[in-house]
Amino acid sequence: MGMVGGGLDGFIGAVHRKAAAMDGQIELVCGVFSSDPKKSKATGDSLYLDPARIYSSYEEMIKAEKKLPADQRMDFVSIVTPNHMHFAPAKAALENGFHVIIDKPMTLSLAEAKKLKQVADKSGLVFALTHTYTGYPMIKEARQLIKSGKLGKVRKVYVEYIQGWLHAPLEKTGQKQASWRSDPKKSGLGGALGDIGTHAANLAEYITGSSITELCAELNSVVPGRLLDDDDMMFVHFDNGAHGTLIATQIAAGEENNLSIRVYGEKGGMEWRQEEPNTLLLKWPDKAKEIYRSGMGYTSDASKQNTRTPSGHPEGYLEAFANLYVAFAKAVRDYKPGKKIDPAKYDFPDVDDGVKGMAFIEAAIKSSKGKQKWVKI
Amino acid sequence: MGMVGGGLDGFIGAVHRKAAAMDGQIELVCGVFSSDPKKSKATGDSLYLDPARIYSSYEEMIKAEKKLPADQRMDFVSIVTPNHMHFAPAKAALENGFHVIIDKPMTLSLAEAKKLKQVADKSGLVFALTHTYTGYPMIKEARQLIKSGKLGKVRKVYVEYIQGWLHAPLEKTGQKQASWRSDPKKSGLGGALGDIGTHAANLAEYITGSSITELCAELNSVVPGRLLDDDDMMFVHFDNGAHGTLIATQIAAGEENNLSIRVYGEKGGMEWRQEEPNTLLLKWPDKAKEIYRSGMGYTSDASKQNTRTPSGHPEGYLEAFANLYVAFAKAVRDYKPGKKIDPAKYDFPDVDDGVKGMAFIEAAIKSSKGKQKWVKI
Amino acid sequence: MGMVGGGLDGFIGAVHRKAAAMDGQIELVCGVFSSDPKKSKATGDSLYLDPARIYSSYEEMIKAEKKLPADQRMDFVSIVTPNHMHFAPAKAALENGFHVIIDKPMTLSLAEAKKLKQVADKSGLVFALTHTYTGYPMIKEARQLIKSGKLGKVRKVYVEYIQGWLHAPLEKTGQKQASWRSDPKKSGLGGALGDIGTHAANLAEYITGSSITELCAELNSVVPGRLLDDDDMMFVHFDNGAHGTLIATQIAAGEENNLSIRVYGEKGGMEWRQEEPNTLLLKWPDKAKEIYRSGMGYTSDASKQNTRTPSGHPEGYLEAFANLYVAFAKAVRDYKPGKKIDPAKYDFPDVDDGVKGMAFIEAAIKSSKGKQKWVKI
Amino acid sequence: MGMVGGGLDGFIGAVHRKAAAMDGQIELVCGVFSSDPKKSKATGDSLYLDPARIYSSYEEMIKAEKKLPADQRMDFVSIVTPNHMHFAPAKAALENGFHVIIDKPMTLSLAEAKKLKQVADKSGLVFALTHTYTGYPMIKEARQLIKSGKLGKVRKVYVEYIQGWLHAPLEKTGQKQASWRSDPKKSGLGGALGDIGTHAANLAEYITGSSITELCAELNSVVPGRLLDDDDMMFVHFDNGAHGTLIATQIAAGEENNLSIRVYGEKGGMEWRQEEPNTLLLKWPDKAKEIYRSGMGYTSDASKQNTRTPSGHPEGYLEAFANLYVAFAKAVRDYKPGKKIDPAKYDFPDVDDGVKGMAFIEAAIKSSKGKQKWVKI
Repeated sequence: MGMVGGGLDGFIGAVHRKAAAMDGQIELVCGVFSSDPKKSKATGDSLYLDPARIYSSYEEMIKAEKKLPADQRMDFVSIVTPNHMHFAPAKAALENGFHVIIDKPMTLSLAEAKKLKQVADKSGLVFALTHTYTGYPMIKEARQLIKSGKLGKVRKVYVEYIQGWLHAPLEKTGQKQASWRSDPKKSGLGGALGDIGTHAANLAEYITGSSITELCAELNSVVPGRLLDDDDMMFVHFDNGAHGTLIATQIAAGEENNLSIRVYGEKGGMEWRQEEPNTLLLKWPDKAKEIYRSGMGYTSDASKQNTRTPSGHPEGYLEAFANLYVAFAKAVRDYKPGKKIDPAKYDFPDVDDGVKGMAFIEAAIKSSKGKQKWVKI
Repeated sequence: MGMVGGGLDGFIGAVHRKAAAMDGQIELVCGVFSSDPKKSKATGDSLYLDPARIYSSYEEMIKAEKKLPADQRMDFVSIVTPNHMHFAPAKAALENGFHVIIDKPMTLSLAEAKKLKQVADKSGLVFALTHTYTGYPMIKEARQLIKSGKLGKVRKVYVEYIQGWLHAPLEKTGQKQASWRSDPKKSGLGGALGDIGTHAANLAEYITGSSITELCAELNSVVPGRLLDDDDMMFVHFDNGAHGTLIATQIAAGEENNLSIRVYGEKGGMEWRQEEPNTLLLKWPDKAKEIYRSGMGYTSDASKQNTRTPSGHPEGYLEAFANLYVAFAKAVRDYKPGKKIDPAKYDFPDVDDGVKGMAFIEAAIKSSKGKQKWVKI
Repeated sequence: MGMVGGGLDGFIGAVHRKAAAMDGQIELVCGVFSSDPKKSKATGDSLYLDPARIYSSYEEMIKAEKKLPADQRMDFVSIVTPNHMHFAPAKAALENGFHVIIDKPMTLSLAEAKKLKQVADKSGLVFALTHTYTGYPMIKEARQLIKSGKLGKVRKVYVEYIQGWLHAPLEKTGQKQASWRSDPKKSGLGGALGDIGTHAANLAEYITGSSITELCAELNSVVPGRLLDDDDMMFVHFDNGAHGTLIATQIAAGEENNLSIRVYGEKGGMEWRQEEPNTLLLKWPDKAKEIYRSGMGYTSDASKQNTRTPSGHPEGYLEAFANLYVAFAKAVRDYKPGKKIDPAKYDFPDVDDGVKGMAFIEAAIKSSKGKQKWVKI
Repeated sequence: MGMVGGGLDGFIGAVHRKAAAMDGQIELVCGVFSSDPKKSKATGDSLYLDPARIYSSYEEMIKAEKKLPADQRMDFVSIVTPNHMHFAPAKAALENGFHVIIDKPMTLSLAEAKKLKQVADKSGLVFALTHTYTGYPMIKEARQLIKSGKLGKVRKVYVEYIQGWLHAPLEKTGQKQASWRSDPKKSGLGGALGDIGTHAANLAEYITGSSITELCAELNSVVPGRLLDDDDMMFVHFDNGAHGTLIATQIAAGEENNLSIRVYGEKGGMEWRQEEPNTLLLKWPDKAKEIYRSGMGYTSDASKQNTRTPSGHPEGYLEAFANLYVAFAKAVRDYKPGKKIDPAKYDFPDVDDGVKGMAFIEAAIKSSKGKQKWVKI
């Protein structure tokens, strides 16, 4: 694995590295960790990398790695930069024969996303988008349960992603995460929308196996002076006839990373909360509520394949992330030139999810600006 | 206390009676418990009432009681009938000098509500509306905490009332509660909206001390054949600048009586869940979350005055209901002809809350039918 | 109902009154509320009692009430005094033809308890002991589930009653509850043991349908200067072969009224916590955990008969207490002279439970003082 | 890192490997993964090891690795075999200059433990014992809070380790984990006692900073035919005057890995539950309960140094385990021959904890067999 982005002062780079390392299947062999060569070097050194493979630009990395013998060069590129630096390295990597795993939202705009899809499709290489939360075993379980019809036809979905870390103008203090996320040039058109709203939408679609077809949104910039939305609420309609609400906010002072989803079908409901991710609650009108727990013998294969420890030994965010890497790595190992890998078979989010995410962002912005209720995606 | 409605096969009548009896301050002395005199008689007998004071109509009751000496006749009327039978007995009681406590929504329509307000105002008598959930001690605590500025300026409110009991067409089985609630002639224009949406709106307004000024709603009738809404979602704007979502649904299969509210201010957030009502959770960005518990010494006087037992001895729905009766009874005792009682001082919902509730219902229906986003209340 | 004890500055008297009043079946008609006639009068007045029936001593009350016509006099006596004033009024009431309901622990000593049992048995009257916690619907459910064999043979019981209110020497401030409870002359040989340990033991025996046969105890007086135990822990053996621990402490600073019980059988386990009493958690090795909720349609008749509201409308401590009064009142109504009432049929704790409680106290004290592990009850 | 034990069909070997790999500081370079060379080979291959460094015995591994240049050979040995195969490889590693990290309980007997301590002390090398649960950030927080005096003098400790996986005779099915753990030759004198009781004791001592000085135990073999204890309960006395209960059972059908600890001091209490490890609950008599959450800015340095992600991104069992490896690895990096490393400074359990654990086991067995209450450790 070669990495683009992920300097020492960032957050998500270290998450990717730990997630990739955990299961002993992926080795970080090179990277360009910052646009500042000194910072890139310092990061690479701290990671015990071969100094010759700590690069100053993604172009340099791709060029140099391509020259190495096949059994030595990086197999894939992990892109963990701010949004505005997703497209170019991803395109370059794909065009030079490297598989790509990339953070979300996929690009800066829907137009870029569509272009990247073309590049990815043309390359035939493996492309994964790290919608982390779909990696949790109990999300796999939830998806299976709904697919099996246990809840009956899905009618209602409430998905929420509630954070508080931007309740004050943190970006004005220079805090790195806050700064680029609230800068339209780096983050794109969406603030909270792109950062967490896309996670919420993706999670709802993944669990229900349905797509959001239209929405009615109100996006707010609550903190004075903030250029992008930091507080979103919307009604959503799904292609299976279900409807619901999607909430994404970063100004809920006191909240941590409170992503949750509730789904109700004709026969029963379910509830999952990311902050206690190993529990899936099923609710029934005519029998006791049920608590499914990850790692228990009765869980589905999809869930079991995404757990490492017996029940009661909690797994968390890094393990969910690692599940995406494990799935992606398996696809990379199985990859044969000229034969397209099916992401669904390996169960990781791919370039199509990335395009959907960008379309979701643009639709929500359009809806929020207009006076009409509904905008189609 | 004399009661109108509340026959043995109902639900809310018994609740009112137990709530009124609990604290030894109110005695049920007469009633008309059903439009069917036999049923009224059977109910009255089961309640050990004087047979002479079990009536066949509210008109008869009011007439007969009025004739009794002041120290023997009922002091007030409790009206617990379906919505379409609220207005007439309330009006009659007030016009004949009896205080009134009445279930919500106050009337069948906003027009009726306004008329009833005129009658009540003119009478100068005590008038209470049983928005039960504002009777909980931790709701009193929440209101005080927000009023005190502890959360800072309120920015965001999420209020939800999620039930599952109407996930199937229960009304077709003849179940009494479901039947009248899904019948526009008895329930009014709102289904879930009137039954539980008004509770949610009232709770949000009570806690925040603000009023909803406009809303954008989608109301659905999810269960095939149902005439009224059974599933509502809306964005709401408050007069203090806050915004949020309000959800009310009765088709969330597996849910019980899941009313909850979360409020976020500039400095912190709070969360309360009716199914565990003795806990109020405060969330802070820079210090530990706090669990306030009813009955603890550090709670506010407003909260303490609404608890009966030390902390850890859970109080519930009936006690919250009883708190409204205690407040109302105190006002009735304090009442002096010609001197208007201030409901705010006694802390119970009154005829103005009733009018607001009906205006909320009509605005939500208008919004849901239109294509424009926002409708003013 | 006539009451002995329960002045305005007490706690448990008001609880008894509210519990008795709630369901409209019991009327408080007279009482002696304090050994101080002025206080008794003040309390009776505040309760709107007939001044003629506010008495100065239990002897006076029994004598006066006995003279009243049968349809006017009190039907039974509720005794809510400190422990040292249980025996005499209970004996007098029974010997004069009044049924008795009495707070726990039943008496000051095992010897007294045995005498009272003789009196009660001889009288043939209805006698109930208010082990409140057995009145909860989910405790009824738990008992039924174990009885039905759903958990398999019971192997392990962990019962805990953890409070914090006596973590400091509250009795030195003159606080009434703390004062008599820490005074051996008023409380008896046990402190925490009598006050809450007996509740824990009774609950374990009630749920499992088994009796504690022997125990190994350590009783501590943690707060300096305290004369009675305030912190107890013991191993217990049951007559069905199960074993477990029983904890009762009042010095766990920060705890409220944290009574809980966990029972494990060969096939599964269960857990109930008094502070969230409407939930019963079942745990299974090979299927999802189950959350039973009071008021749901699938619960047992025993549970349903002890709920007043639909699920999700929480009932609490007062309702559990009221369930004992309802059961007792039914027995009183059914009572016919010369025909002994079976408490098991009505499902309330009786004089035998009272004797067991006192035997438990004395065995625990004996065990704690000795060096040998086990003491038989 | 070289590993002894940890074949593919085991549980704890993979846990150690993932924990060691996660943070990119430790590389598995060699191992002997099974006493069966074929199995050892298969495991090593699956881990992408150099075939030349997959060994058939620990003796061979130590010999071969010692011959390698210092910058190529393993730095330390991780021992993850069943208990009876702890002592010999640990001794050999230490005597040949390799640091050791080893699973608990440290040895088969107290005598062995004392011998190993001599060897370790003499070697001057770094020696860590993987009492996993002390690696959790909220345990670090708890320890700091108690140390700081926030709870006041500690009075009461309730520690419980409740599992259900051995509620049936799983060992008779040949399940590997159950088989060796219930075999006295492989597990030692303690069953549940050694497997989980030692964790509970270590956790209580670590958090409180006190040592258990005497205990009164009942150990049971509940499942028929089982040779070792599967269910333990004991009273414990600490050297600071505190007392409490310690429960360890593996027959609580339906439980997962339910380790919890509650500590009460003069001023307040705390509660931590391993199955939701990122939360630490503080309880106060005179103010709101507090929920400390890992990753929040207000937590102690000790806690922060043991988290990888911001609050709300749950970390779990593997991360706790990894924290021990990180601490151990730091000590190994800092190690200089002839200068003893202080485990307390690096904050990992060491050989003294191992000796204490074995002494605890032997005292509990002695107590359980005797009729006297107390046995000193």
